[in-house]
Amino acid sequence: MRLPSQVTVVDVAPRDGLQNEHAKITTAQKVTLVNLLSEAGVPVIEAGAFVSTKWVPQMADTAEVLADIERRPGTRYPTLVPNLRGLERALAAGSREIAVLAAASETFSRRNVNQSIDESFVTIAAVCERASLAGVRVRGYLSTCFGCPYEGDVSAERVGSLTRALLDLGVFEVAISDTIGVAHPGQVWQVIDAITKHASLSKVALHFHDTRGTALSNVLAGLQAGVTTYDASCGGLGGCPYAPGASGNLATEDLVYMLNGLGIATGIDMDRLLAASTFASTRIDHPLPSRYFQASRAVRR
Amino acid sequence: MRLPSQVTVVDVAPRDGLQNEHAKITTAQKVTLVNLLSEAGVPVIEAGAFVSTKWVPQMADTAEVLADIERRPGTRYPTLVPNLRGLERALAAGSREIAVLAAASETFSRRNVNQSIDESFVTIAAVCERASLAGVRVRGYLSTCFGCPYEGDVSAERVGSLTRALLDLGVFEVAISDTIGVAHPGQVWQVIDAITKHASLSKVALHFHDTRGTALSNVLAGLQAGVTTYDASCGGLGGCPYAPGASGNLATEDLVYMLNGLGIATGIDMDRLLAASTFASTRIDHPLPSRYFQASRAVRR
Repeated sequence: MRLPSQVTVVDVAPRDGLQNEHAKITTAQKVTLVNLLSEAGVPVIEAGAFVSTKWVPQMADTAEVLADIERRPGTRYPTLVPNLRGLERALAAGSREIAVLAAASETFSRRNVNQSIDESFVTIAAVCERASLAGVRVRGYLSTCFGCPYEGDVSAERVGSLTRALLDLGVFEVAISDTIGVAHPGQVWQVIDAITKHASLSKVALHFHDTRGTALSNVLAGLQAGVTTYDASCGGLGGCPYAPGASGNLATEDLVYMLNGLGIATGIDMDRLLAASTFASTRIDHPLPSRYFQASRAVRR
Repeated sequence: MRLPSQVTVVDVAPRDGLQNEHAKITTAQKVTLVNLLSEAGVPVIEAGAFVSTKWVPQMADTAEVLADIERRPGTRYPTLVPNLRGLERALAAGSREIAVLAAASETFSRRNVNQSIDESFVTIAAVCERASLAGVRVRGYLSTCFGCPYEGDVSAERVGSLTRALLDLGVFEVAISDTIGVAHPGQVWQVIDAITKHASLSKVALHFHDTRGTALSNVLAGLQAGVTTYDASCGGLGGCPYAPGASGNLATEDLVYMLNGLGIATGIDMDRLLAASTFASTRIDHPLPSRYFQASRAVRR
């Protein structure tokens, strides 16, 4: 079985994770979390978002977080930016990498960013152009690639062509995202197959949610297909708030445990990663969903 | 990617699951659970155990359970039997299939069944011989195949030769078990590779625990290697009691969800399977760890 020797892990806990948590997390606590993740060797840490502070109050202090973290040389700290206004705030705060959000489902796009897919691409084009002038790299998320909560099935071919379209706008990488956690390995192979007709897999990341327990099997499928960048969230932070222990983002430690077992290098120190999750676990109002995190605490007891 | 078109799912919830639950489950409730599983189309249901009622009081009523269930034609209802005395009880209760327990780690064998591996094989040989005379089939568990809580690493080669030894005693199938939930896909390929030197994979089942989140990725690895029988527990029943949401057995619905996605037939009706888990969930004292079960309840809400 041929697998990559090395992968890049993107920890989205400080943004995608915390944004979905109810508990109030202070700026200092966010800074500590980002610093613990960089000390653990996580190469890419999504540090926050420059979105509406009215709709997403949890991300209102991203500029302060960026100002206060200890920037580890080589570590990247992307921030999510929905539009030009967000980009200006990101640039003012010294962001050197941003992330933009598109959807593979028309209904999800309208409900999530209040724009059709085409309209959202106009926005993203403007953001990419301005970012390029500022020397800032742009990562793209493509959400609902494996299923939409409103439309159901999403065509793999459409995911492929939208990936190409995002790359053509200037994003350096597209995170193919399973927003509602329905993907299974067969679908991963299908979607990747469709993408390879339009783009190099070196420009593709996979972003899985463990909502139905399939996230790691999907990663395995992705590794076998040749994808080498994976999003995850330490502790599984951002687990859907509907049930204790329910899971949103794939947990970084679950991912790293499997990758370590497969002999795939990540540069991440598991004990330090667990220190980051342990810190996060004391700030939220439910158990962290990460299976590995739970097991490691039980073993210590 | 070549995968089997069909697999056999063995639901161990009424035995391996309930045995690890603290809550008191009545005989009538066990009967209901077994019946709900057979109505869901689960082809093999581990219905109980004829073990010491002193040490495992939860299994004291297995004879009554066997007497009261509605036996669905074609469904198998194995019961765990540790020794000849247990076998006599199983035969008296009308068991037509039993399961025996061996370990791949010397220390685990001594601590779990109070016998060395060699001694346990003498016991198993006697049980197999008597069972054969009675026309009763014997399934074998080989525990700690991917790691031992006392010894750490377990040699894949030893797993292979012990699998052969169990088959030579007359068991028709060996469930290669990840007792402490440490396996990862690379190890699954390694162990299966070692087994194929000694035995046909048609005689092998895989029994994973989802303790570190890797169970489904291990199943995917097993499917790719050609194994077609998988153990699981509805709802993930039997989740380690140490933490709410922590996971022992792979949840049957998580397994079936992935297999359905891969187009692999199991004969199991997901809605009816969820009905069995829902029933179980009302009888235990913690949330069921199955990710799929949690997601399905959240979606319904």
